Amino acid sequence: MRLHTAPDHGVVGQVATAIAAAGGIVTAIDVAESTGTRLVLDVTCSAGDADHAQELEAAVDEVPGVEVYKVSDRTFLLHLGGKISVNSKVPLRNRDDLSMAYTPGVGRVSMAIAEHPEDVWRLTSKGNTVAVVTDGSAVLGLGNLGPGAALPVMEGKAALFKRFADIDAWPICLDTQDTDEIVRAVELIAPGFGGINLEDIAAPRCFEIERRLRASLDIPVFHDDQHGTAIVVLAALTNALRVVKKDLAAARVVVSGAGAAGSAIVTLLLAAGVTDVVVFDREGCLVPDLPGLSPAKKQLAEATNPRLVSGDLRAGLAGADVFIGVSAPKVLRAEWIKDMAADAVVFALANPDPEVDPAAAGKYAAVVASGRSDYPNQINNVLAFPGVFRGLLDARASEITLEMLLRAAEAIALSVKDEELNSSFIIPSVFNPDVPKAVAAAIRGDQR
Amino acid sequence: MRLHTAPDHGVVGQVATAIAAAGGIVTAIDVAESTGTRLVLDVTCSAGDADHAQELEAAVDEVPGVEVYKVSDRTFLLHLGGKISVNSKVPLRNRDDLSMAYTPGVGRVSMAIAEHPEDVWRLTSKGNTVAVVTDGSAVLGLGNLGPGAALPVMEGKAALFKRFADIDAWPICLDTQDTDEIVRAVELIAPGFGGINLEDIAAPRCFEIERRLRASLDIPVFHDDQHGTAIVVLAALTNALRVVKKDLAAARVVVSGAGAAGSAIVTLLLAAGVTDVVVFDREGCLVPDLPGLSPAKKQLAEATNPRLVSGDLRAGLAGADVFIGVSAPKVLRAEWIKDMAADAVVFALANPDPEVDPAAAGKYAAVVASGRSDYPNQINNVLAFPGVFRGLLDARASEITLEMLLRAAEAIALSVKDEELNSSFIIPSVFNPDVPKAVAAAIRGDQR
Repeated sequence: MRLHTAPDHGVVGQVATAIAAAGGIVTAIDVAESTGTRLVLDVTCSAGDADHAQELEAAVDEVPGVEVYKVSDRTFLLHLGGKISVNSKVPLRNRDDLSMAYTPGVGRVSMAIAEHPEDVWRLTSKGNTVAVVTDGSAVLGLGNLGPGAALPVMEGKAALFKRFADIDAWPICLDTQDTDEIVRAVELIAPGFGGINLEDIAAPRCFEIERRLRASLDIPVFHDDQHGTAIVVLAALTNALRVVKKDLAAARVVVSGAGAAGSAIVTLLLAAGVTDVVVFDREGCLVPDLPGLSPAKKQLAEATNPRLVSGDLRAGLAGADVFIGVSAPKVLRAEWIKDMAADAVVFALANPDPEVDPAAAGKYAAVVASGRSDYPNQINNVLAFPGVFRGLLDARASEITLEMLLRAAEAIALSVKDEELNSSFIIPSVFNPDVPKAVAAAIRGDQR
Repeated sequence: MRLHTAPDHGVVGQVATAIAAAGGIVTAIDVAESTGTRLVLDVTCSAGDADHAQELEAAVDEVPGVEVYKVSDRTFLLHLGGKISVNSKVPLRNRDDLSMAYTPGVGRVSMAIAEHPEDVWRLTSKGNTVAVVTDGSAVLGLGNLGPGAALPVMEGKAALFKRFADIDAWPICLDTQDTDEIVRAVELIAPGFGGINLEDIAAPRCFEIERRLRASLDIPVFHDDQHGTAIVVLAALTNALRVVKKDLAAARVVVSGAGAAGSAIVTLLLAAGVTDVVVFDREGCLVPDLPGLSPAKKQLAEATNPRLVSGDLRAGLAGADVFIGVSAPKVLRAEWIKDMAADAVVFALANPDPEVDPAAAGKYAAVVASGRSDYPNQINNVLAFPGVFRGLLDARASEITLEMLLRAAEAIALSVKDEELNSSFIIPSVFNPDVPKAVAAAIRGDQR
């Protein structure tokens, strides 16, 4: 905040006190200007969220002799001008450089690729690039915000691709939410990319888009909201069951949410050997003969619920070993966990507000994970997608198999050593540099 | 070249002599390995073109005791792995950084853009990005090579955008040559970009694509092969006429080539005040009542040829002040220039081989320019497009006007000062850092 105050240095102390009293944390106070008639103060402080920031601003505004002139937000400041740039990897100092990187030299490179199309992987950036494609229909947990509002998320994703796997990713925000148009647009831009990362596209549209693109393209297509999430969930579940000493094949698993993430998680869990999965959506438990099920949900219902459970989520939880929520805030009441089997595992992954408060869940469950960064065991796709695409690009893979996803999950799980593993550490840090390397090796199928 | 030779150091001298005798220039000889039985030599040398390089290789191969093991090409080596990368502009060192650049912080930025769509210009990279879009149908002067083979050229263009105007450009190589599909694909990807640079799209398709995109998009659309070329040609012509002390409005101009570049050049020349332009295509002189003219050529014919010239190019040149070729190699014989008016100006811009050898043309013309970098007066689009888009992005322009193009040409022409101007220096160096700045200012319409 930039404040105008009376030229009284006592005010500075009162401002700091007011912020602290309102629960904020002051990290810096700079006097930007000091005259006989006023002080200009720049106060930097941390708030819990946007609402809290407004409370802090109000608290400061109430200090006598203080006027809040301007409030800036670190996150917004960081975003000014965007988060990614394109850089030349070749020098362009003189005419000689120019004539190699551009005309006339580049003409020979183009001719070489025209004669040997495979050379595009060697002589261009294609082999290290990924298109991060969205239609803006399911931006984070925030809903259908459209392609422009999705751009900061896609740029963030591109920045993460670079940071964690040295991949050159570029955001493609499509101005349509029509399945056919999305499919065709991605097919048309595909020649310049080595892989397609679909992102924040709503279900059930995302299933068809991915299926059709996988059929038509010769580069891998990966919907991160589905498979990235599924990989990390399976890794975390593997380790959670290591902690409570239960067997994956024998575990009873309840999944809340039958959208993009939910269906991908179920598919991967079944492939990993889980036998008893029951899926709940807004209407209740998925059973195959339920009228009005979408094709995707019908398929999910047919693959799951072997005991033909019916009823609501609370009933379904009775005796379950694992709850995995990828649905909506507060659908799980902490007390219901008491009805689960002993040493229950609860993953409450709805963003930004989980199905159950992780701290409350921790009173009843043996292991709790969430999507939040302010609790232990954050289930974060950043653990998966950079390494997945690194491996795919390294292997010049044309498709992604279920076996690759299983191996990637195993690689993440094994990144937590036995001596590190405990109920608050089932998943490695996103900053562990070995994780993307291990995931990439798993995707490539390297022999260990 | 990597050579295996007998372990006789005299051979090294013979290799150097053989290369020099064949017209090559040796810049380095390294002994990579030396044993009792052989030497491994790395010889670096310059050749005039790919054919010459093969001659040099053959000459070296004929030296007794020498085996050419491998030949590498600097231009190809430079292209390995591509020429551009994506970089994060924000630090991602720790959890705090991550939670601002990505979830959960980025969610607030997305919400802000959803509420105020204009903020996408401020809070994302959109305001500094350009899509370099091609269908690969007219790659340089090489023809229809397809999107993959076009990629090195588009990457080169992106690298130039960065080098000369600090713009983040990304190549989009489309897997279609259907006009409707190209238009729709560009419309769909437009939300993430601040401008569209169409590149190497064949005429007449390129006209319709540009026209339709300009109508449907709210960001500027610029076909560099047309308007970039036209700007630089007008700038060069302005200065060539300064040299020979002729007036633009009174000059008789002959244009050879009625494709993308030719028609854009004619349009800009007319807007600049040229009154007497005659256009020739493969079939001869464009006159409005010629049967079988395409709509684009008919329009061109109607706007030109006020004296209703007919016949072949040679006849049309009689008395002309200016020849501008954007057509095909060797369509102009140097001797024909004798029939032009005194102090003739000849621009032979076909790439890579011009309409007439610039040196031969120089015997008869007062000023000669070409697209070649090994003669004076290279007409190079690099003088225009970086500054054009810098200006468009700075001004957040939604369209490009003819006035902007005229001002850009004037800015380039004025970059050559009176005391610098002569028949071998009508156009500034592409490395003159003032040029893109002046072009950007002209596009923005800054007051001088």
